[in-house]
Amino acid sequence: MKSDPALFVGIDVGGQSIKGGVVAEDGRRFPDISVPTEAHRGADRFLGQVELAVNQALAAADKRLNEVTAIGIATPGTMDLPAGMMLEPPNMKPLRNVPIRQHIADRFQKPTAFQNDANAAAYGEYCFGAGRDAASIVLFTLGTGIGCGIIVNDFIIEGAHSHGAECGHLIIEMTNGRMCGCGQRGHLEAYASARAMVKRAREALAESPLPGPLRDQLGPYPGPAGRALSEEEETLDARYCSTVFQCAEAGDPLAARLVAETAYYLAVGTVNLLHTINPHRVIFGGGMIAAGTKFLDQIRAEVRRIAFPVPGKNTELVYAQLGGDAGFIGAAACARRMWRLDQTRVDRAR
Amino acid sequence: MKSDPALFVGIDVGGQSIKGGVVAEDGRRFPDISVPTEAHRGADRFLGQVELAVNQALAAADKRLNEVTAIGIATPGTMDLPAGMMLEPPNMKPLRNVPIRQHIADRFQKPTAFQNDANAAAYGEYCFGAGRDAASIVLFTLGTGIGCGIIVNDFIIEGAHSHGAECGHLIIEMTNGRMCGCGQRGHLEAYASARAMVKRAREALAESPLPGPLRDQLGPYPGPAGRALSEEEETLDARYCSTVFQCAEAGDPLAARLVAETAYYLAVGTVNLLHTINPHRVIFGGGMIAAGTKFLDQIRAEVRRIAFPVPGKNTELVYAQLGGDAGFIGAAACARRMWRLDQTRVDRAR
Repeated sequence: MKSDPALFVGIDVGGQSIKGGVVAEDGRRFPDISVPTEAHRGADRFLGQVELAVNQALAAADKRLNEVTAIGIATPGTMDLPAGMMLEPPNMKPLRNVPIRQHIADRFQKPTAFQNDANAAAYGEYCFGAGRDAASIVLFTLGTGIGCGIIVNDFIIEGAHSHGAECGHLIIEMTNGRMCGCGQRGHLEAYASARAMVKRAREALAESPLPGPLRDQLGPYPGPAGRALSEEEETLDARYCSTVFQCAEAGDPLAARLVAETAYYLAVGTVNLLHTINPHRVIFGGGMIAAGTKFLDQIRAEVRRIAFPVPGKNTELVYAQLGGDAGFIGAAACARRMWRLDQTRVDRAR
Repeated sequence: MKSDPALFVGIDVGGQSIKGGVVAEDGRRFPDISVPTEAHRGADRFLGQVELAVNQALAAADKRLNEVTAIGIATPGTMDLPAGMMLEPPNMKPLRNVPIRQHIADRFQKPTAFQNDANAAAYGEYCFGAGRDAASIVLFTLGTGIGCGIIVNDFIIEGAHSHGAECGHLIIEMTNGRMCGCGQRGHLEAYASARAMVKRAREALAESPLPGPLRDQLGPYPGPAGRALSEEEETLDARYCSTVFQCAEAGDPLAARLVAETAYYLAVGTVNLLHTINPHRVIFGGGMIAAGTKFLDQIRAEVRRIAFPVPGKNTELVYAQLGGDAGFIGAAACARRMWRLDQTRVDRAR
């Protein structure tokens, strides 16, 4: 008689909220939950919220703790993965050097896996989403910024200093490169993220005297005229990214140019991964993929044009399938991976 | 009683010559040999030369075939690694779709490993050279072109289509990028290879009216005036790369600027690997490292300036240690790796 599939709790910590859910060994999901992160109230309160998320995920799945095999936690960087520490997560100011893995392992007395949120999302797609049947994948998460995760033969490229797959910060333009949110110039994220796309749209409108739907619909300039936007204002403004896509769809030539340029920039980043990792599949996720398949086709065409012929022709470029759930599903998959590797070790020691 | 260490034959196929040698399990090397490649005489003749190289390597080590455990062969791309096929190696015109791995395995009745030459060189440095004590490395081979190999936890990043680690062809400049030998623009190799460096030197001299040691020593313009150099002429001209370094050392400001720019370009390529693989160590090999440690220090300074702080500070940047032997030593190490993985499988099946 086959035993019930093992169960894992996956937790995805974001700046505003913590998502969580129980995922079975075979990928079956139970209802997911969300609690506020409350990072501003300090590390103790924050860790309490993570515990709350684990308990709520169990309750939503109608499972008790002893029915669960392991827990997986994903958080934003920077971090020390081998040490299980959150170091300096952005926009979570009071949190510094939080030993989250050990805390959760102790609190629940369960083996606990710890992973970068972008890597976890990639591993989630790899195990249960758009990368299910591929041996190696790269996931680009196209949101306000650009996240990335790389999986090769079930191995997560974490890097020697927990900085693997920071591909939003690939340098694609050395000369007069655009300023990135990280403070360096010429990075992919400074060209192709939602924030960068809206910024480029506002710059183009400022230069162009022509009226058009994009100008009408982009919304008011969100800062005092004549002054550059703050990072916070730019981040808020990134929500107009969908407007640029809609205007392009409606025939606005300026918007169409902005979309085509974005596809090209993403192709440059993709080709740099094709010529480094050469994965079976590149997956695009995040808010920007709401633009639809035409945008994906534009990226595909640019990749074919500028990549080496063999990977250019053979690498599959697809959209992600797990949406905003990729993080906690991937965190649960990381817990599963840890458990399986432990099983292998036990089997070999017998 | 401990048995003798296992022995492996390593073969490195180049455009002009095939290098080979016997390498012991523990890295001990026997005298190496070299035979002409003779690709222009067709596949049969070429395969005969590879056989000759294996036999000469055995003879130079004073070993018989039955004392050797396995053979490793490294060749230039393009190739199909899982199939053991050379597809279209550059500058080896008549060779197309040569099933070299099977041929050598049949001829010598030995397990035979097959690898890309740049990957093999990286694996050689990883096992027995400058990467000996690092868990993950990237090797940039700075010659006429720029080769690359990536090793993470004893795993060679071959890629889904045998195009892993083609990092000479990372796109680092989107706008008005320099033309690369591969026919695309903006690649690292088009900026930082020996060929690119001499090309940039000739361009700078053509623009600058100033006399100086670089102008005096760079040698005659190798093509008819007023015409761009052919690829062949540029490749020949790359030998003047050392002249540029010498003139910089001697105080020529133009040469010094060219060297500093080259260090910057290599830092950009390096940072792109730091933000993708985030290896423990980046190793620079090839003819250009004859420039000495000052050049390495310039690369280091630029990497620290433009990388994320943590990998920028912690990634070790060093020169290679195996010189032109890295290829055949790495090929032998690939044979050792295959043998060890087979051993593990046998042990587990018991």
